[in-house]
Amino acid sequence: MTRDLTPLFEPRTLAIVGVSTDPGKWGYWFARDAATGAHRRRVFLVGRAGGELHGLPVHRALAELPEPPELVVLSVPAHGLDEAVDESLAAGAKALVAIAAGFGEVGEEGAARERALVERVRTAGALLVGPNCLGIFDAAAELQLASNPLPAGPVGFVSQSGNVMLETALLLEDVGLGFSRAVSIGNQADIGATELVAALGAHEGTRVIGVYCEDFRDGRAFAEAARTAGKPVVLLTVGRTAAGVRAARSHTGSLTSDLDAVDAACRAAGIHRVETPRQLADTVSALLTAHRPRGRRVAVVGDGGGYGAIASDLLGTLGLEQPVLAGKTQAALRALLPPTAATANPVDLAGAGEQDAWSFARSTRVLLEGEDTDAVLFTAYFGGYSSLSDEMREREVDVARELSAAAHETGKPLVVHTMYWDSPPARLLRADGIPVYRAIESAVGALATLVTDVGMRVRTPLPVVPPAAPPLVETDYASAREALAAAGIPFAGARIARRRDEALAAAAGLGYPVVVKALGSVHKSDEGGVVVGLLDERGLEAALSDLEERLAPPAYSVEAQEDTAAGFELLVGARRDARFGPVVVVGAGGIHAELLRDTAVALAPLGVGGAESLLRALAAAPFLIGWRDQPPLDLAAAAEAVAALSQFAAAHPEVAEVEVNPLLVRSRGAVGLDARIVLANQST
Amino acid sequence: MTRDLTPLFEPRTLAIVGVSTDPGKWGYWFARDAATGAHRRRVFLVGRAGGELHGLPVHRALAELPEPPELVVLSVPAHGLDEAVDESLAAGAKALVAIAAGFGEVGEEGAARERALVERVRTAGALLVGPNCLGIFDAAAELQLASNPLPAGPVGFVSQSGNVMLETALLLEDVGLGFSRAVSIGNQADIGATELVAALGAHEGTRVIGVYCEDFRDGRAFAEAARTAGKPVVLLTVGRTAAGVRAARSHTGSLTSDLDAVDAACRAAGIHRVETPRQLADTVSALLTAHRPRGRRVAVVGDGGGYGAIASDLLGTLGLEQPVLAGKTQAALRALLPPTAATANPVDLAGAGEQDAWSFARSTRVLLEGEDTDAVLFTAYFGGYSSLSDEMREREVDVARELSAAAHETGKPLVVHTMYWDSPPARLLRADGIPVYRAIESAVGALATLVTDVGMRVRTPLPVVPPAAPPLVETDYASAREALAAAGIPFAGARIARRRDEALAAAAGLGYPVVVKALGSVHKSDEGGVVVGLLDERGLEAALSDLEERLAPPAYSVEAQEDTAAGFELLVGARRDARFGPVVVVGAGGIHAELLRDTAVALAPLGVGGAESLLRALAAAPFLIGWRDQPPLDLAAAAEAVAALSQFAAAHPEVAEVEVNPLLVRSRGAVGLDARIVLANQST
Repeated sequence: MTRDLTPLFEPRTLAIVGVSTDPGKWGYWFARDAATGAHRRRVFLVGRAGGELHGLPVHRALAELPEPPELVVLSVPAHGLDEAVDESLAAGAKALVAIAAGFGEVGEEGAARERALVERVRTAGALLVGPNCLGIFDAAAELQLASNPLPAGPVGFVSQSGNVMLETALLLEDVGLGFSRAVSIGNQADIGATELVAALGAHEGTRVIGVYCEDFRDGRAFAEAARTAGKPVVLLTVGRTAAGVRAARSHTGSLTSDLDAVDAACRAAGIHRVETPRQLADTVSALLTAHRPRGRRVAVVGDGGGYGAIASDLLGTLGLEQPVLAGKTQAALRALLPPTAATANPVDLAGAGEQDAWSFARSTRVLLEGEDTDAVLFTAYFGGYSSLSDEMREREVDVARELSAAAHETGKPLVVHTMYWDSPPARLLRADGIPVYRAIESAVGALATLVTDVGMRVRTPLPVVPPAAPPLVETDYASAREALAAAGIPFAGARIARRRDEALAAAAGLGYPVVVKALGSVHKSDEGGVVVGLLDERGLEAALSDLEERLAPPAYSVEAQEDTAAGFELLVGARRDARFGPVVVVGAGGIHAELLRDTAVALAPLGVGGAESLLRALAAAPFLIGWRDQPPLDLAAAAEAVAALSQFAAAHPEVAEVEVNPLLVRSRGAVGLDARIVLANQST
Repeated sequence: MTRDLTPLFEPRTLAIVGVSTDPGKWGYWFARDAATGAHRRRVFLVGRAGGELHGLPVHRALAELPEPPELVVLSVPAHGLDEAVDESLAAGAKALVAIAAGFGEVGEEGAARERALVERVRTAGALLVGPNCLGIFDAAAELQLASNPLPAGPVGFVSQSGNVMLETALLLEDVGLGFSRAVSIGNQADIGATELVAALGAHEGTRVIGVYCEDFRDGRAFAEAARTAGKPVVLLTVGRTAAGVRAARSHTGSLTSDLDAVDAACRAAGIHRVETPRQLADTVSALLTAHRPRGRRVAVVGDGGGYGAIASDLLGTLGLEQPVLAGKTQAALRALLPPTAATANPVDLAGAGEQDAWSFARSTRVLLEGEDTDAVLFTAYFGGYSSLSDEMREREVDVARELSAAAHETGKPLVVHTMYWDSPPARLLRADGIPVYRAIESAVGALATLVTDVGMRVRTPLPVVPPAAPPLVETDYASAREALAAAGIPFAGARIARRRDEALAAAAGLGYPVVVKALGSVHKSDEGGVVVGLLDERGLEAALSDLEERLAPPAYSVEAQEDTAAGFELLVGARRDARFGPVVVVGAGGIHAELLRDTAVALAPLGVGGAESLLRALAAAPFLIGWRDQPPLDLAAAAEAVAALSQFAAAHPEVAEVEVNPLLVRSRGAVGLDARIVLANQST
């Protein structure tokens, strides 16, 4: 659904309902902001008291307005919202912004009122932002309708939190940036994050999109809107600790947080995810630079060894490379710098910048022009000289102009860190599209963002969830095994036995050694219901007696024992995320996944190629692909099993969690040694 | 050695040598600064040109001064430093600050000049700061001698980088803090970080000590000075990537960076380590608050769900707890807040703060007074109302005063995050000792710092390196095993065999199955020189033939084969750090340590208790102490082996790296399966 949002962002007529003369009230702020934009559109103020405000007459009712208001901002209390909406629609409004809280976010009664409101708005062919929101902003249209003045700039912003929007605005303003359009979406009763991301993608004045969102509704639709926006999308969201809160019923469930599902979607859609407003502002300002590195080789240039060393450590932490510079590059630097300068990388000017500020520009240009560098990090006492004299300030500004020219001419990213982040040369650099940061960690983070961004424009659509297969009814161990085997996952040979003689016959058929599992209990292994390493009939009989006495199971599964030492155990699972649908999880063997948190998550379903990439993302991947004198295992077979499980999970919406744990990957083939399925409507 | 630093920080007479009239030169800045302090001490300017500067006469030579200068700042080029030092000492100087670079940091010739300089200074009973430094500062003495004005405050600062000192000053100034004393130590030719940390510990005006240092010299002496300083010490240093640079010759070597050794010392001494100037400023400002949490339970109070959710995620990331608040506390909050407010934790005021700013204070007090909370994080649109009207500003300041009172009365830490970090209420809070941060990640980090700080005051001295034992000469495999066994580490039964018949006899003596290792090569296993699982004489003979053909080793080690599946493999090693001496490393089993980076490091030697704590710090510790249905292994035996290896390493300064990898920990006992020793003077 693509709706025309023109009445919202570029209305020809605007009404503010519920204006106030109290400078601490929203009705005052909106009236003030609307009046400020009165040269761009007709503005009507509406309030019971009438009179005049900010130089405009105050109408007593919407019905009294001389012409229909295209956009109406409803700054009225929750109890008056229904009436105000109806009056607005009757007056011909095409877009509404509802500020009041107390609807869908407070319970079912409020949610029902909210649904009814939206129904009436849509029937009238209008749009609604909110309720429970803070306002909207369009820089080009000079439409400022929020509690606080917002800075103009190239960042489109969608926020489910008013405070996060205001804080982001202040952080962007510090670095000379601001919003192209911004919407506080509140409860997203009608217009939500997905629709706005798509609209900002098409909006000419927006160069990068920032989003704060907790409730994605259809998460895949959101991600797909971001993927196809045609410009970088930076997402601030929450949910790291959600796994602890959600009642997980399998290892798969307990090993994946809600944020893992978000991250899987971000990878599939090329979204940059951040964790705080400051990270969001830092990331956005990095992405606005015109250039992208061709690789991860960073040259660092600074004055003083300390700066270079701190930068080096941070680059290493973020996986960037800082190679020793080529002989040619070092020779060019030596020709410019004093003999005490370090030229290997980091480059330390050793006082040359203090002697002659042009040294900063000359050495930076050498680095940007070198074939041994993909990006340059400039970290220096630069900008500080500007406060000493007019002459030094002018020189620093000239040097900044040359730094910027060198970056634009070579097409390589230059990222600057200076404690004098607000000095005239720093401002010039920023105005020229060179990111300048006050903190070195922000500058290094910006380089990492740019490197990441290169591979991030995703061409393939998100995986599509297939039509639902006939739902599973039985999910006991034997049924789970059978269903997964039918889906294409190989399992060790097994037979179900209800009686002792059946079990002995099964073992004889499979061949010793065998494993016996007591059925009828979900947590088989936790309760000692699994006995491994039964070498012969006598061993099996003893195990059966013991299990019978302790657990009195209704049946047993007798299984061929695999040599687990001759392979590597993986956890392979999937769960259905409420927002992003089925996600598949792989983890390094058995209890390793839980203790060492070595897991990887992707949206399901996956093909074999995608499954292999997921396995390669594990820290323990060398166990599969070969490592020192360890021979490679059958990665392809493991990937096939992962793909099969992901497709099974995607086709079974009634399955909340499914896992094969362990999947034993051998030098030839892979085999499941256990299986579990939990239905969404099932309690443990 | 405790020297009197009074002539440095509180000189009664001061001379600046090498003054300049160029406002871009150091000689100008020092003269300006010295003149500013002329009401506190006699100030002499010395420069060849003579004349007058900043209202003071310029003397042409030190010899012309009317009285001895207690402190002399030498702002002269490197080639003139020797002469200037001699003239200063002749004039009676007791403390010297040498700015010029080009000494110990540029090579052996410079280092020799530097050593000679120090010799002359010490012989004269004087002190020297530098060379290659930026200056010094003492707030109480109004002694400001640096390129830039520095802010006064309670932070003692020692910096090996001038720029890091200036940047830290700016960051502290932003939050109303500054330096009590600050020293740019440069090459530490005479006075170094250790001596200054000890001196700042005794300095009344210093409440917390910040250090930027790369070169610790005697690292344990530095750490011990920090431990006994009697106030928090925050250390910014570098070295994360050093392991890649250092040529490591064992797993132990490649698994520990220089920073791991620093961290081991920091843990042993209770030092807070940070990675950037911003982290240093954030940490220092947290530590200056008077209160410490009794546990890690944090209550979050804010306005708007977004703020609370972002804070929750960050708290979880940093290992802080955010429990659901007790019924009593929630009832007290409900009595204060609107029905739509969230009271479980995070507490969301749901607009109450906007209606009545006192809601912020009342709800925060409820949380601080609750028995269910150790600290409170306040994250809100607070401070922003101050810009709306005088009345609102006054109210916010009153509310801030009440917030501060609640914190001080309850003795619990209150940490504040507000985007209006520089508003009047924010300034009031900071002046009252309540940390206020602009970024939520800084605020949450501050809480983590305070929780960490509680357990950090270390009472036990750093482990003492014992006198050297007779040095090892032979370090081949058999000798290494023997030396380590003699040190108390149990090994699997083994015999050395030079010929085939000796090998067969050894195996018969040990009992099958056996392992055979080809000796004479360091990387036995990488070259296929180890054959395991030899079940009988025939198997052993085949293995010997194969090894003979491929490697023609001078001898074999025939060893009893241990059942590695019946235990857990650890890496236990030690290496000698150039600055911090012997450090011991434990890691999770075999190749896991390398792939999953699960290692823990401590200063050696360790006792059995310390070794057990180290093992418990591994992510894989549950493998040792029991996990689900896995029985516990013999942690005590593992700890004994770790302690024995650490003591061996500590007593052998000639050993660069030593490791037992793997050490197989069983349900009873632990046994080494391999050993390696690398001497410091040995190449691979």
